[in-house]
Amino acid sequence: MNLRIDRERLTGRIEALGEIGALPGGGVRRLALTAEDKAGRDLVVSWMEGLGLSVTVDVIGNIVGTRPGRREGPPVMMGSHVDTVATGGLYDGALGVIAGLEVIETLAGAGIVTELPLAVAAFTNEEGARFPPDMMGSGVAAGALDLAEMLAVEGIDRARVGDCLEAIGYRGTAPVGAIRPAAFVELHVEQGPVLEASGETIGVVTGVQGISWTEFTVRGTSNHAGTTPMAARRDAGVVAAGIALEARAIADEAGPPQVATVGASALSPGLVNVVPEEARLTVDLRHTDETALARAEARLEAAARRLAEAEGCRLASRRLARFPPVAFSPAVVDRVEAAAAALGHPARRMPSGAGHDAQMFAPLCPTGMIFVPSRGGLSHNVEEYTAPDHLEAGANVLLATVLALAAGLPEPTET
Amino acid sequence: MNLRIDRERLTGRIEALGEIGALPGGGVRRLALTAEDKAGRDLVVSWMEGLGLSVTVDVIGNIVGTRPGRREGPPVMMGSHVDTVATGGLYDGALGVIAGLEVIETLAGAGIVTELPLAVAAFTNEEGARFPPDMMGSGVAAGALDLAEMLAVEGIDRARVGDCLEAIGYRGTAPVGAIRPAAFVELHVEQGPVLEASGETIGVVTGVQGISWTEFTVRGTSNHAGTTPMAARRDAGVVAAGIALEARAIADEAGPPQVATVGASALSPGLVNVVPEEARLTVDLRHTDETALARAEARLEAAARRLAEAEGCRLASRRLARFPPVAFSPAVVDRVEAAAAALGHPARRMPSGAGHDAQMFAPLCPTGMIFVPSRGGLSHNVEEYTAPDHLEAGANVLLATVLALAAGLPEPTET
Repeated sequence: MNLRIDRERLTGRIEALGEIGALPGGGVRRLALTAEDKAGRDLVVSWMEGLGLSVTVDVIGNIVGTRPGRREGPPVMMGSHVDTVATGGLYDGALGVIAGLEVIETLAGAGIVTELPLAVAAFTNEEGARFPPDMMGSGVAAGALDLAEMLAVEGIDRARVGDCLEAIGYRGTAPVGAIRPAAFVELHVEQGPVLEASGETIGVVTGVQGISWTEFTVRGTSNHAGTTPMAARRDAGVVAAGIALEARAIADEAGPPQVATVGASALSPGLVNVVPEEARLTVDLRHTDETALARAEARLEAAARRLAEAEGCRLASRRLARFPPVAFSPAVVDRVEAAAAALGHPARRMPSGAGHDAQMFAPLCPTGMIFVPSRGGLSHNVEEYTAPDHLEAGANVLLATVLALAAGLPEPTET
Repeated sequence: MNLRIDRERLTGRIEALGEIGALPGGGVRRLALTAEDKAGRDLVVSWMEGLGLSVTVDVIGNIVGTRPGRREGPPVMMGSHVDTVATGGLYDGALGVIAGLEVIETLAGAGIVTELPLAVAAFTNEEGARFPPDMMGSGVAAGALDLAEMLAVEGIDRARVGDCLEAIGYRGTAPVGAIRPAAFVELHVEQGPVLEASGETIGVVTGVQGISWTEFTVRGTSNHAGTTPMAARRDAGVVAAGIALEARAIADEAGPPQVATVGASALSPGLVNVVPEEARLTVDLRHTDETALARAEARLEAAARRLAEAEGCRLASRRLARFPPVAFSPAVVDRVEAAAAALGHPARRMPSGAGHDAQMFAPLCPTGMIFVPSRGGLSHNVEEYTAPDHLEAGANVLLATVLALAAGLPEPTET
C-alpha cells in the first residue's frame, strides 16, 4: 500500500488556521494566550475531536489529542505550537500540529491502527514573544521549566501567564508530564536558507544548536563631542562597536556552524553631539558543540573586558539565555533519513539553528525533527512561505517516520 | 586706575538667573521661547533698564541693550544667550550676557564713557535644543540664516518659533541686522576639559572648529540569528559598527584637533535573535582646518561605502549639518591674550570645539571669544560648574578687551 497524506486537506487546514489573527498585508499575529491564540486552539481542538481523539489540556495549557494503539502505553507524539510572533507567518508551528493531525487522519482513512498510541500536541507559548522564555509549554511538560514559576511569568504587556490561561479557558486540569511520549517527532519549516540554497526538500535534523545570549552594558562618560579631546574620552559606543566586530570575527574565524549576531544595540543619551555615556548590546552565539560554544563565550567576554579597559569604561555582562546543544536520537534521525530516501526526496542532515519544542523531549525519549524549505530563508516574517510540494513531502516523511516508530519496526516502511 | 568687575554682583546675577527654570537636583531647564526663557529674558531686560541701557528687541527676539559712547556709530558688542538645553547648567550662555552687563556697570561706576558705544546682546535660541538649528538668533542677525524660514521652524514639540515669540512677547519690531557691531566679544565657559587639565585660567579662542554631521542609514536583510549561516547574512549592524570604528580611527590617525564622535546609533528591528535589517548612526566630525575636515569626511564616506558593499548592504548618507571652521580676528585674539597677560592670568590659545553666537559675527566684524574653565569639562549637564575665581577672571579679561576695542586703543589698558 502506498500510504500518502492528503495535500489539499493539509494545506486547507494551514490556510484555515492562518485566517485566525491574519494581518491585513499577509502573515499572522497570534501571540500566546491572546484571543487569537484561543481561537486557534479552539480550531485545533475541534479538529482533534472531529478525528475522535481523546483531548486533554494540562495545567500550563498544552493540548494533547491521543489516538489509541493496539496496546496501551506511552504514545508516539507529534506536534508543535499554534502561537506566533507579532508579525509571523502561516507555517512556523502550525505545520507541525496540522501535519500531526493529517498523519492520524490518513491512518484512520486507511483503517490502520498502530501498535503504539499516537498523539498530537500543541504546546503553549513556544515563541516567547509575549511571555519569555520561549518553549514554555513543552519545557514545563518535559520538566525543564518550573510550573509555578512559569504561571507567574509577566508578559511584555504586564499580563501573567496563569491569569491569561484562565481568561482564555486553557488552564487545564491534566498534570504536566502526565502524557510522557514513547518518541517525539516534530515537522517544522527550516526558517533558514540552507535547504532552498541546496535544492533539497527534507532536512534531517540531527540536533539543535546550543544558544548563548549575553547582554553587555558599557558605561563611560557623557561628554561634548566638540570640546572633548579624543584622549580624554571614555566612549561607551566605541567599546560596543568593538564588541560587535569581535562577535563577527569569532564566527568568521571558527567557521560553520558557529554563528554570532548582535541584534540589539543602543547608545545613551543617543545625541549626535554627545559622546555616549552608556551602550547596551546583545550577542547571540550558537554552536552545535558545547565545547566550541563555551570557547566562543569565553573569547567574547575576554575581548569585551579588554576593549572596555582600553577605553576606561566599566563593563557588565549578563547571561540572558543559555541552552546547551541538543543531539537528537540517532535511531530517529536514521528513520527520518530513510523515510525521505524511500519517498525519493533529496535530504540533508543538518542542525537546527532555532529552538523548538522537540528539543525539550530529547532528554526524555527518542526524539527527532524534520525540516522543509523556507522560501528566502524567511521566518518570523509575514513573507514566510513553504511551497505546497514541500509541505506535502514533509508530512509524508512524518507519516512514514511515525509509522515506523509506532509499529516498533526497525526501518521505515511503505506499507 | 585698577578697574575691576565686582565678583559678588557677577556671581549674584548668575545665581539669580539660575533660579529661573531651576531643576530640583541642580542645574536649569530654560528651553528657548518657553515660559522659563521669557522669565529669564525679562530679568535680563530689567537689569539692562536698571543700567539705563537703550533696549531693543528684533523680529527674531534678540535683545540688545546699548550704552552710548562719546561718538555715534556701531557699538562694541558683548553677549551670548539665556536659553539652555533640557538639563543644562547655570553658566553656558548666561555668563556671556551677565558679564557684558557687569562690564558696563563697572564702567558706569567708574564714570567711564568709552569712545564707541557698548552693547550687550542676548540671542534667541542658541542651543537649538527645542528648535533646530542652533545659533538661530545670532545667525539671523548676522544674515547667515533666513528670517522667514527661522520663524516657521517647528520645534520638537511641534510649536513654531514665530508663534512662540508672539506668545512670550518677544517678537520685537527692530529689523534684524539693525545693530551691526563694530566688534564682538563673547565670554563663555569652555565646556571641555582642556583648561582644567592644563591649569590655565583663560582660553584665548582663536576660532571655532568646523563641524560636519552625517547620518548613515545602512539597509541589509532581517534574518533569524540561529538559522542563517554567516555567509548568507547582510547584517546592517556589522556595517554600522565598522563605520563607528572607522570614525574613531580617523580621529586617532589625524591627531588633534581632529575629533570624531558617533553619538547616536540604533538597530532595527533591535531583537536579540534577529540579524538587524537597518542601522542608523550619526558621525560628528570637527576640525579647525577646512581641508583637513573635508579629508576626514571623504575618508569616512569611502570607508562606509566599502564596508556596506562588503556586507551586501545598501548605504545612504545625509549631511545633517555643515559649518566651515571660523577663524577669529587676529587683532581681537591678540587683545584677549594681552589682557589675560596684563591681569596675570595663565592663558592658552585654543579653538572652540562647540558652536557659539560669536562665530556668526566673525565674517562681519572683528570678533573673538574668551573661555574660562569648566570643572570636569562638563557642560550641557546639571553638574556644569565654573569656579567664582574663574568667572571673575574671565569677566575682567572681557572688560579689558572691550575697553581696548571701544577706545580704539591698540593695546589693552589698565586705566
